[in-house]
Amino acid sequence: MARARVLLGHGSGGKLTHQLIESLFLSQLANPILKALDDSAVFSVDSKGRGMGRLAFTTDSYVVKPLFFPGGDIGRLAVCGTVNDLSMVGATPLYLSAAFILEEGLPLADLRRITASLKGAAREAGVKIVAGDTKVVERGSADGLFINTAGLGLVPEGVDISGSNARPGDAVILSGPIGNHGISVLLEREQMGFVSSVKSDVAPLNLLVAAMLEASPNIHALRDPTRGGLATSLVEMAHQSGVAIRIYEGKVPVDEEVAAACEILGYDPLYVANEGKLIALVAPQDAPEVLRAMKKSLYGRQATIIGEVLAEPRGKVLMATRVGGTRIVDMLSGEQFPRIC
Amino acid sequence: MARARVLLGHGSGGKLTHQLIESLFLSQLANPILKALDDSAVFSVDSKGRGMGRLAFTTDSYVVKPLFFPGGDIGRLAVCGTVNDLSMVGATPLYLSAAFILEEGLPLADLRRITASLKGAAREAGVKIVAGDTKVVERGSADGLFINTAGLGLVPEGVDISGSNARPGDAVILSGPIGNHGISVLLEREQMGFVSSVKSDVAPLNLLVAAMLEASPNIHALRDPTRGGLATSLVEMAHQSGVAIRIYEGKVPVDEEVAAACEILGYDPLYVANEGKLIALVAPQDAPEVLRAMKKSLYGRQATIIGEVLAEPRGKVLMATRVGGTRIVDMLSGEQFPRIC
Repeated sequence: MARARVLLGHGSGGKLTHQLIESLFLSQLANPILKALDDSAVFSVDSKGRGMGRLAFTTDSYVVKPLFFPGGDIGRLAVCGTVNDLSMVGATPLYLSAAFILEEGLPLADLRRITASLKGAAREAGVKIVAGDTKVVERGSADGLFINTAGLGLVPEGVDISGSNARPGDAVILSGPIGNHGISVLLEREQMGFVSSVKSDVAPLNLLVAAMLEASPNIHALRDPTRGGLATSLVEMAHQSGVAIRIYEGKVPVDEEVAAACEILGYDPLYVANEGKLIALVAPQDAPEVLRAMKKSLYGRQATIIGEVLAEPRGKVLMATRVGGTRIVDMLSGEQFPRIC
Repeated sequence: MARARVLLGHGSGGKLTHQLIESLFLSQLANPILKALDDSAVFSVDSKGRGMGRLAFTTDSYVVKPLFFPGGDIGRLAVCGTVNDLSMVGATPLYLSAAFILEEGLPLADLRRITASLKGAAREAGVKIVAGDTKVVERGSADGLFINTAGLGLVPEGVDISGSNARPGDAVILSGPIGNHGISVLLEREQMGFVSSVKSDVAPLNLLVAAMLEASPNIHALRDPTRGGLATSLVEMAHQSGVAIRIYEGKVPVDEEVAAACEILGYDPLYVANEGKLIALVAPQDAPEVLRAMKKSLYGRQATIIGEVLAEPRGKVLMATRVGGTRIVDMLSGEQFPRIC
C-alpha cells in the first residue's frame, strides 16, 4: 500500500470515496460533529451564556508549490492561514472545513502525511475540522493537491478590530522577523543550490492574539502579512482607515539568512510572504503592555514596534530609510513569485 | 479588454489582485459584510430572538468540466451545491464564501460570466457571499477554474434532520426525475454528436425544503443525490440509520431523453448525478401533506413517492424491478464519469 495512489474513483462519491474518507480523513480528524456525515455539520456555538455574539467567517485556498517545504507543508499552511484570518478580526477560531482537490496519481502516502500535519496544526490551534470534501481531477488537471479551508470563529463581546479602525498615534507592532515563509518556499522549489536553513514561519496566531486582547482593549487593527508581504498589508490598512503609516527600515526585523537570500535574488523582504506574523495597530498608551504580552507568547517573542500611524498623507505608507531619507512604500505590483501559499 | 486573460499577478495579493477583486468580484457581489475587506467577514446571525439555535456549516469544491453546460455553469453549481447541502439538514442558508483557483490564461470574460451566474444563483437562493479568495496557478497547473464554496446556515429550533434519523415505515419521496445533470454535462463534454435537449437540473432547493418543513415536523432525513446518484444516497442513509430502503423501479422518474442517453451509453440513471433533486424520508402519515407542499414549489413539481423504509435487511437498499424481481442496489463502485460537479 506504500505506493498506492489517488484514483479518479476516489472522487466518484461512491465506494472508493467512502473508503478514502474513512481510512484517511475520519481516522485522523474524527470528532463527533464530523462523524455525523450528513451534508452539513451541525453544532451550537458556545458563547458562554452572553448571547450569541458575532461570528467571523473566512476562506482561503492553498496552492503552495512544493507541497512540503522547510518548516511546514500545505496541510499546516491550510489550517494556520485560516485560523490566522479569523484571529485578525479578534475572533476565537472554532471550526474549520477542509476541501481537497486531488490530482489523479498523487501518492496516498503524501496525502496521509499532509492530513497528519493538518491535524497537528488544528490541535495546536484548538480548532475542529467539522466539514470536508474530496474531488479528484485527471492527471494533468491540477498540480498534485489543492486544499481549501473555511473557518468559523466567535468574536468576543466588545471586540472591534478592523483594518479600518487605525487612528493617528497608534503604534505599529510587528510580531517578528519577516520574509521567512516566502524565501523558504522559493528556495525549496527552485533548488537553487543555496545551502540555507531558512524555515517557513507558518504558525497559528490565535493564542498570541488572545494574549494581546487580554492585555488591552485598544487593539485597533490586526493583519497577517501573507501574499504581498508587510508592505501590501500596511498599504491596505492605510487605505481602509484613511490614515498614513510611517515605519522605520532599521526597525523592521529580517533574519540574516533571509536578508542575504533577498539580496542575492533581488527581492525586497517588505514584499515577501509570511505565514506566522502579524501587524498590530495599537493605541499608543497600551503599546508597551501589548508588546510585553506578545513577547511572552510563543509566536510573539521577537515582537517589536516598527512605526506609528499618522493623520497625513492619507492612504500612504512612508518608510524612513537607514540612510536618512523617506520613501513611499506601495503595494506589490505584478507578481513577485507565484504559488507561495 | 474583451480578450483580457487571467495573469499570474492576479494572484499576487498586490495591486492586480486588488484590481480584480474590485472590478469583478466586489462590483458584482458587493454587500456591506463583504465590502469590509478584512481578513474575515464578521456578522451576527439573526435567530429572531429565540436564542442562537444551531448552525450548519458545509463546504464543497467544484471542478466540473466543461465550465459551461446546458442549464448552468460552474458558478451556478457552486452556489446551489452548497445551498443544497445546508438545506439537507433543514438549515436556512445565510452566508457563503467563494474561493477561486484560476488558471493563468483564463479569459476574464469567462470569469465575469461565471461570477454573474454565481450572483444570480445567490440572489435566487437568498444568500449572501461574504468572504472570498483568489489564487492563480500557472498555465497547465489547473483546468481553467475551480471554485470552492463554504456555507453557513441556521437550523430552526426543533428541526432535527439527519441521514441517521430514518425509521421503518417512512415514505421515500423523490423531488423529480433523475440523471439530468450528469447526462447534460457528459454530452456537452464529450461532444458525442447527440442531438439532445437534456439540461442540468442545477437549482437551489432551500425554498422547497422550507415549504416541506412548514408542511410537517416529521421529515426525518433529506439528501440531495449528487455524485454517486440516487442509489448511493439511499445506501448512505440506509447505513447511517441501520434500516433498509425499498424502492420501485417503475416509480423512479427518468426523463425520456435521459433514459435514452443512459441506454445508449450504458449508464444506469440510478448512479447519475443530480444537482437540483432531493430525497426525503418522511413519517408515513405526513407524506401526502409533504408531497402536496412539494408539488406547489418550483423545484418540486414532479415530486413523487418511490418507496418506503423497512426495518430489515439493515443497511441495504432493495429495488423491486419492473419485471417483478427484487435486486440489491449498491453504492457506485469505481468512477462512472469524473468532473461532473
